[in-house]
Amino acid sequence: MTATTATTTSPTAPTPAWLAELTAALGAGSVLTDPDVTASYARDQAMLALSGVPAAVVLPRTTAEVSAVMTIASAHGVPVVPRGAGSGLAGAANAVDGAITLVMTRMDAVLEVSTADRLAVVQPGVVNKALRDEVARHGLFYPPDPSSYDWCTIGGNLANNSGGLCCVKYGVTTDYVLGLEVVLADGRVLRTGRRTVKGVAGYDLAKLFVGSEGTLGVITEATLSLRPAPQTPVTLVATFSTTAQTGQVVEAAVSCGVVPSLFEVMDRTCIRAVDDMMKAGLDRDAHALLVAQSDAGGEAALAEMEVLAQLCRDAGCDLVHVTDDAAEGDLLLAARRMALPALEQLGTTLIDDVAVPRSRIAAFLDGCDAIARARDLVIGVVGHAGDGNMHPTMCFDPTDDDHRARAFAAFDDVLELGLSLGGTITGEHGVGSLKTAWLEREIGPVGLDVHRSVKRALDPDGLLNPGKMFSAG
Amino acid sequence: MTATTATTTSPTAPTPAWLAELTAALGAGSVLTDPDVTASYARDQAMLALSGVPAAVVLPRTTAEVSAVMTIASAHGVPVVPRGAGSGLAGAANAVDGAITLVMTRMDAVLEVSTADRLAVVQPGVVNKALRDEVARHGLFYPPDPSSYDWCTIGGNLANNSGGLCCVKYGVTTDYVLGLEVVLADGRVLRTGRRTVKGVAGYDLAKLFVGSEGTLGVITEATLSLRPAPQTPVTLVATFSTTAQTGQVVEAAVSCGVVPSLFEVMDRTCIRAVDDMMKAGLDRDAHALLVAQSDAGGEAALAEMEVLAQLCRDAGCDLVHVTDDAAEGDLLLAARRMALPALEQLGTTLIDDVAVPRSRIAAFLDGCDAIARARDLVIGVVGHAGDGNMHPTMCFDPTDDDHRARAFAAFDDVLELGLSLGGTITGEHGVGSLKTAWLEREIGPVGLDVHRSVKRALDPDGLLNPGKMFSAG
Repeated sequence: MTATTATTTSPTAPTPAWLAELTAALGAGSVLTDPDVTASYARDQAMLALSGVPAAVVLPRTTAEVSAVMTIASAHGVPVVPRGAGSGLAGAANAVDGAITLVMTRMDAVLEVSTADRLAVVQPGVVNKALRDEVARHGLFYPPDPSSYDWCTIGGNLANNSGGLCCVKYGVTTDYVLGLEVVLADGRVLRTGRRTVKGVAGYDLAKLFVGSEGTLGVITEATLSLRPAPQTPVTLVATFSTTAQTGQVVEAAVSCGVVPSLFEVMDRTCIRAVDDMMKAGLDRDAHALLVAQSDAGGEAALAEMEVLAQLCRDAGCDLVHVTDDAAEGDLLLAARRMALPALEQLGTTLIDDVAVPRSRIAAFLDGCDAIARARDLVIGVVGHAGDGNMHPTMCFDPTDDDHRARAFAAFDDVLELGLSLGGTITGEHGVGSLKTAWLEREIGPVGLDVHRSVKRALDPDGLLNPGKMFSAG
Repeated sequence: MTATTATTTSPTAPTPAWLAELTAALGAGSVLTDPDVTASYARDQAMLALSGVPAAVVLPRTTAEVSAVMTIASAHGVPVVPRGAGSGLAGAANAVDGAITLVMTRMDAVLEVSTADRLAVVQPGVVNKALRDEVARHGLFYPPDPSSYDWCTIGGNLANNSGGLCCVKYGVTTDYVLGLEVVLADGRVLRTGRRTVKGVAGYDLAKLFVGSEGTLGVITEATLSLRPAPQTPVTLVATFSTTAQTGQVVEAAVSCGVVPSLFEVMDRTCIRAVDDMMKAGLDRDAHALLVAQSDAGGEAALAEMEVLAQLCRDAGCDLVHVTDDAAEGDLLLAARRMALPALEQLGTTLIDDVAVPRSRIAAFLDGCDAIARARDLVIGVVGHAGDGNMHPTMCFDPTDDDHRARAFAAFDDVLELGLSLGGTITGEHGVGSLKTAWLEREIGPVGLDVHRSVKRALDPDGLLNPGKMFSAG
């Protein structure tokens, strides 16, 4: 496929010692070097991120095999890129030339679900939806729900500290991690954290590994806390003629203490795109649409959504509607869920990811509108209004170099806007290979230095996912 | 006072260069060496923990002053023990001979309360209750409530990842930390984390500093998320003739998904001690008492407590009573809050701190009973039933060496019991200088080695709170 992989796969080239050792340890069926196969593991879903090609793709089945891989890799100084399904949006799982890509998808068992301790013990390769379905059979709930929940893996969720629609009420992946088993860069196996709800014995290493994007260790098992199953939601939808009104509603909701279980916003570009695709009869003149849910149950849920409905009226909404009919609620939520597919009808999409303080959402929406005008681009903004995590999405024609360049420039404009409003360059998608320069800007020189110190402490030879998140310096 | 302090305070001994530099930088009013004064900063509340005497006590007023202290200390290789009010129960704040004790209580401002972003920005010296009261004036709620909440500081809470009665529903301190300002061992100032609800830009360093007991840096500012004010609670009390029944109720509550805002247990020793002190008319023959609350509001709260009441009846309780009268609820809760003062009437108390999986609470209570019998001791057990965090408390006569020795031995027996049940050696009090050997046992050799690597990365000269949590090796 490329010169890089050819060095390890050409019949005339000698097999490197590390590759022979890996094959001996794991078996030929778990160590893949066919360039057509390895190329298929080269990238995640981040269009902008650079990528190499794996020197080998390794698919371990046990912690002992992962340990063997890291022991061999560290002995030979071969870098390792851990990954799951490859649903990431920042290139964190993108291959590095000459490196092993360590694919965790075969370790996909749900090892335990305990109702008495309300927790699950899982391997990293289990798909998010598979875990959700399994614990639901026990009347339990695993909240983190990235939009790729039907194919992303828990290991990837852990590595990226994934969020989703649930976060406004239920937080993100790190909030559900009790304990981890991690294979370190040198192959040693660390068990950290615990099975108890509370515990302060030592540093919170589990939460350090969560969100570290595979740069500190390879997660091979996780003990996750669960919640009781939520109740049937009550759903609210409201439309507004100005974005400022939606910002006002979010700010008022935060201030008055109502905590919906879902609280999403779409701008006019998204509304029209969805309406074009779904023929949903949405208000095409609205500047913004809010969808919210309460899963508090029965009257309490209706009461919560009525509080929010009144805030919408106070802000001068064009329309507000509350329903406790589950099917109608699903339909209203479908409009939100279709926002990105609908934008894809308008061209190739480039999704950004910024979180701003909740009081700055209106300013952020207006800023995105200004960027769209300045760059002469279609930018649809969909976001988790309740937690300020917004996903402006640039639509462009990839065959038009100028159009493409303007989309890429707008991507950076959005990050600049987010930082200027006191926000962060990534709310839930991660840094990966896409935003390393931006990370350095956000965390500053002291922050970068501390990151490098921690990285060196756990991976002194820099073998784990090199070049991702920040440069080793 | 002792030979140690005399070396820095005797009029005939030369003033060390670092002390002169500190005094020049912060002023004489902030650098105390009078042995009577420094001795008063020697210890926290952990009777068993060893302690030295501070070489100097330094009370900074600003981050710049903290930075100056660490710059001077690191230049001269002088260790530094950061501390707050000294309410700790593991000796984490205990002085180290020859070290500076850095007392953060003068940095006690609540810098901001934002209702729109539902957060507060505080200095470390603010007392927990002062923060709670301040945010309550804005209709907001800061949940973590260690029993010393009316005098412990937020900085100490952060350093120890403190819990309290709230944890069963609202989690612990780390769950409220959005961002931190930390002065590093070499005096540099790190700002980490953010003001947004979500964010995954870089490692979660904030949660690494939280619970690190002053061994990785000095926290000088925290951005804390807040919750809406809770509603007036509905309270339940129930008594049981066997501990197994309380375990059954907790397990059933966890399994069926009811999440009280408070869920506490007391054993017979505590019931009788409280009844002796308060003349509260408690059932002195009961083997265990549960107190629970729901703050879900109105009918929802009553419904939650009715579910729990039915679980108590199913378990064969002797009595169960639910009230939505706030004054009566306060009275019922007072019995729980008085458990430790009541035990103090029986002798000197030595409080332990173990968390076990919630399914093992009955086994833990029975195990404590067996330890009490084997050691011929009074052990009262009070605990956070809802999260499995239990505080067996040994009562003994400190003038009786044998009695004292049996109490200290029982302290270790309890830890052994907790570990044997899949628990942790500390649920919320921390490791400090009290449980370092136990920590090494719980986290194992790989865990210890990773702790040491992280410590070296952030504090290469081992100046910050040396000897606490684990030995530098």
